[in-house]
Amino acid sequence: MTRSLAERPRLTFWFEFASTYAYLAAMRVEGRARAWGVALDWRPFLLGPVFAAQGWETSPFLIYPAKGRFMWRDMARRAEALGLAFRVDPPAFPVNSAPAARLAIAALERPEGPAFVRAVYAAQWAQARDVADAGVLADCAREAGLDPAALAERAGALRPRLREHTEAAMAAGVFGAPSFAAGGELFWGADQMEDALSWAATGRLAPAAGQGDDPEDRP
Amino acid sequence: MTRSLAERPRLTFWFEFASTYAYLAAMRVEGRARAWGVALDWRPFLLGPVFAAQGWETSPFLIYPAKGRFMWRDMARRAEALGLAFRVDPPAFPVNSAPAARLAIAALERPEGPAFVRAVYAAQWAQARDVADAGVLADCAREAGLDPAALAERAGALRPRLREHTEAAMAAGVFGAPSFAAGGELFWGADQMEDALSWAATGRLAPAAGQGDDPEDRP
Repeated sequence: MTRSLAERPRLTFWFEFASTYAYLAAMRVEGRARAWGVALDWRPFLLGPVFAAQGWETSPFLIYPAKGRFMWRDMARRAEALGLAFRVDPPAFPVNSAPAARLAIAALERPEGPAFVRAVYAAQWAQARDVADAGVLADCAREAGLDPAALAERAGALRPRLREHTEAAMAAGVFGAPSFAAGGELFWGADQMEDALSWAATGRLAPAAGQGDDPEDRP
Repeated sequence: MTRSLAERPRLTFWFEFASTYAYLAAMRVEGRARAWGVALDWRPFLLGPVFAAQGWETSPFLIYPAKGRFMWRDMARRAEALGLAFRVDPPAFPVNSAPAARLAIAALERPEGPAFVRAVYAAQWAQARDVADAGVLADCAREAGLDPAALAERAGALRPRLREHTEAAMAAGVFGAPSFAAGGELFWGADQMEDALSWAATGRLAPAAGQGDDPEDRP
């Protein structure tokens, strides 16, 4: 039975273009949400103010080297398993993602929004292009079927939104990216995307491996 | 085909009794390892020195309140989904887990070791008992079929081992608990236990939801 858009359960997807793990989620979330019958609210925000509130002046992956080494390797093997290209040599880390986030807010007023988000993530993490660069972002807009000049103009008009989103994320308890919110529950990390969708759709977590009929099943 | 113990792939399970998420892994890892045909090396270690090396004087869940709030709620819903009792009111957080870890090292010389580890985790997280208390630990030993006095004596003889394990963990790149290591790869968090087992058994990650024959499958 197909439910109308208005009836479908909703999931808020909090994302930040500078986040590696958000890339894994952003490239797959639309297909997975469709599979679960969940409508998505895409919410670009900035991690900078969130990290600053925790006393960090940059990415925790730079502040804590062991965690950083783990993340780059974990990203490489995870991206490969998901069939996503991933380059560990971005032109800057963390990138200044504010320009891309402002354009995304404007793009997400239109049906092309998710395609623009994926184009920016692919430019940043699959192609190692500099998504702080206006020319790169214009290419992403065209790739998504949007007019770069019109998009930039609308982004200018919506400029305060990005700060509002970031403040809303912090008020919702978000402390990293990607995060997901449904039914008063917060989920953190690409590893919890499926749980978040399951919670939105059914009010409970996705079953763990070994939780089916056979407790010793293999996936 | 059943393989002999010597032929089976191995996974190192790094755990710390003070860690909430390690509880979720420790209670399930033996059954899941059996399902995957993987032999386990149980490695108790202390997070204190690991955190100190990152500049933290206590648990990051206390230093970063948003992360702490998330963790307690995430633990409660995850434990419930796994059918594990979990109390959010332990007598101390983080608990002084060194006495329990020293006894675990001695217990793990014997077949009763994993049962002792589970008894301590259950005392700490399901029953909110103080596992820094020698009487509580003696109860855990008896529950696992071990003689508390003999176990304490052996733990005394093996006392330097705990520091050696902790140093080995740091050398292996461990920065949190639970962690898993197999074939030169490190995995972090109860959410990655299945991936770690899959890597040990097959050299690749467990398939993600939506990665099977039908890209829109639901678990």
